[in-house]
Amino acid sequence: MVSVAIMGHGVVGSGVAEILLTHKQKLFSGLGEEIYIKKILDLREFPDSPVAERFTKNFEEILGDLEIRVVVEVMGGLNPAYDYVKRCLKAGKSVVTSNKELVAAHGAELLSIAKEENVNFMFEASVGGGIPIIRPMNQCLVANNVGEVAGILNGTTNFILTKMIEDGMQFADALKLAQDLGFAERNPAADIEGHDACRKICILASLAFGKHVYPESVHTEGITAITLEDVNFAEAFGYVIKLIGRVKKLENGKIDIITAPMLVPFKSQLSNIVNEFNGIMVRGDCTGDVVFYGKGAGKLPTASAVVADVVDCCKHLKARRFLFWADGDGSNIIDWRDSVSAMYVRCSGEGAAEKAEQVFGEIDSVKDGDELALLTQEMSYRDFESKCKALEGEGVTILSTIRIGDI
Amino acid sequence: MVSVAIMGHGVVGSGVAEILLTHKQKLFSGLGEEIYIKKILDLREFPDSPVAERFTKNFEEILGDLEIRVVVEVMGGLNPAYDYVKRCLKAGKSVVTSNKELVAAHGAELLSIAKEENVNFMFEASVGGGIPIIRPMNQCLVANNVGEVAGILNGTTNFILTKMIEDGMQFADALKLAQDLGFAERNPAADIEGHDACRKICILASLAFGKHVYPESVHTEGITAITLEDVNFAEAFGYVIKLIGRVKKLENGKIDIITAPMLVPFKSQLSNIVNEFNGIMVRGDCTGDVVFYGKGAGKLPTASAVVADVVDCCKHLKARRFLFWADGDGSNIIDWRDSVSAMYVRCSGEGAAEKAEQVFGEIDSVKDGDELALLTQEMSYRDFESKCKALEGEGVTILSTIRIGDI
Repeated sequence: MVSVAIMGHGVVGSGVAEILLTHKQKLFSGLGEEIYIKKILDLREFPDSPVAERFTKNFEEILGDLEIRVVVEVMGGLNPAYDYVKRCLKAGKSVVTSNKELVAAHGAELLSIAKEENVNFMFEASVGGGIPIIRPMNQCLVANNVGEVAGILNGTTNFILTKMIEDGMQFADALKLAQDLGFAERNPAADIEGHDACRKICILASLAFGKHVYPESVHTEGITAITLEDVNFAEAFGYVIKLIGRVKKLENGKIDIITAPMLVPFKSQLSNIVNEFNGIMVRGDCTGDVVFYGKGAGKLPTASAVVADVVDCCKHLKARRFLFWADGDGSNIIDWRDSVSAMYVRCSGEGAAEKAEQVFGEIDSVKDGDELALLTQEMSYRDFESKCKALEGEGVTILSTIRIGDI
Repeated sequence: MVSVAIMGHGVVGSGVAEILLTHKQKLFSGLGEEIYIKKILDLREFPDSPVAERFTKNFEEILGDLEIRVVVEVMGGLNPAYDYVKRCLKAGKSVVTSNKELVAAHGAELLSIAKEENVNFMFEASVGGGIPIIRPMNQCLVANNVGEVAGILNGTTNFILTKMIEDGMQFADALKLAQDLGFAERNPAADIEGHDACRKICILASLAFGKHVYPESVHTEGITAITLEDVNFAEAFGYVIKLIGRVKKLENGKIDIITAPMLVPFKSQLSNIVNEFNGIMVRGDCTGDVVFYGKGAGKLPTASAVVADVVDCCKHLKARRFLFWADGDGSNIIDWRDSVSAMYVRCSGEGAAEKAEQVFGEIDSVKDGDELALLTQEMSYRDFESKCKALEGEGVTILSTIRIGDI
């Protein structure tokens, strides 16, 4: 029997407890031992829970219990999760978390403590919810040089964009629908401004390239500026707009990482990932493109990924699983303005098409009423910005600009 | 240093050797030890190989070498692969194979020998080439009751069907193109008659449901009877035709397994998997649908999956990885004629639509010239066959029938 504790009894935490209880027999036959929930930490009370008597409000009860070998952190946020996780690891307990904010902010340090203490720190559920991605990527990485990882990493924004694309809804209406359906929080900033997706691509980038990438080092744009006009022009060019987290390794050994809306071509596997689903593409030198798709959030999908990690920790109480990256200082990341991409521009003004062609060189363009949309050739963002200024100098009004994803 | 041997130096075998040599540093940093190719077994000679001196034509040299702890079997076919693998396992060596024929025919026995000898028998590359599937499925399985696995498991047939669907090519022309491009063998029977896909769904079914499923127990249809008329009618109904291997668990605890062409709805993630790519959907009670997509064959994708297994074996020389299923006698599989599905029927004859409606009840139908295509409600295949006979009794000629995949 392995005793575990669960810190947090919210959506994911209650799902973890539920799976550990309802799938007890299956887990037993997989592990050869029972997984016993000894304590659940939450400030609230749950008198109707089948394990009501095991709730505690006191973290020290978990920390000081030598029988508890694996601790699940599903509280979310940095405080007190960071402090609790660190102390659990230092006390020789393995920790499993679904907390992407924690992993993105402190992953390198926590992995390093886990290594020192010869315990495991695992976080499959922090990216892609129920989609196996951390483990398969580790596997892909073994015999591959991964060159690029790109994904639709946030279900809320993908749901909103899908409603705009498929049903012609305005952004605000689609957001409200997402909130009504429980896909978006009442304060949706972390989702719609791209921070959630950014944390996840940071975790994948750290794993893929071996150095921690902090969210502050990553240029992040959300989807609040996307309009139905952009959606329709994109379609006319053969693209859909998706919020993409993407990191690629450049020939100079540095990485180019960004979170931003992108025009994704219809033929890309990522273009077909709709509604609240997530999809992640890993491009290896041997495997080629491998794509993982599924529900990126939700109680049971996320909880099942947590439980898979718990089982792995229970199997490896005395041996560390290989999962590690070093700390990073951002010096391996290029300035986002040096990143090269083709661009989509929507603009208006007398003779916009001719002026745009003079400024950008060869373009594809589509006109609709007063507005012109165009696709440029590839250029650095720095070049693009100065060309945009030049175009505005010619009296053209730029209404929106979006990167084109080569994914 | 861990010494390994590779049996077979064909497409995959030479890829394995290449990755072990070119990715040496990466593998070393992942494993903390060097992987040394001590012997390569092949009847041919490869004087230009960088490891030419390590080739042998004598299997006993590998079997008798106590330093060789991991053996890679990439010869293909059952003989002598089965005998060699069995003897290697019994000699206490872990074995990694990409040989789906071997795993589908003898997986349970070889897993059981590996268990007795406390070594590993691994076969990630036997399904889906470079797509991680065996390991992620094992992970999904830990905290999920998997209810269904369905996939496009053969790249050759998917390429042929894609050419028929996208370019309106006839089956024979698409097959010839696949052969010219190296996607299809000169004798394409194993692919186009569905046997290759059948072996792979057998492996996934064995893994998912814990009992070996032998290919002989699985009803298998290929794609040789699919015509452009079927492709076009399918599109009119909102479907594409794909060769699907599918297994699902029924409420009575038995499994329903088949390999056959199916009409897959446009909205299914599997409908967008084109050309030589593979895609596999795993449906869990907690995760929901998870889809894995990538190149299902090819030298380096397959070899990189083999190498990932080799590394895993090297890490676990003294501990078995959990991967096991029991032998099966087919008693857990329902008769394929009892399997329930909606059906597509193409037919011709005076008053076919009215007669079909009388026989099948409610149908959707589309007419094109003399031909009528229709979709029935769900029914057992047994019922369907008798209704088809009744329809033919009314003077209607049935030109083709295809299952509709609820995937």
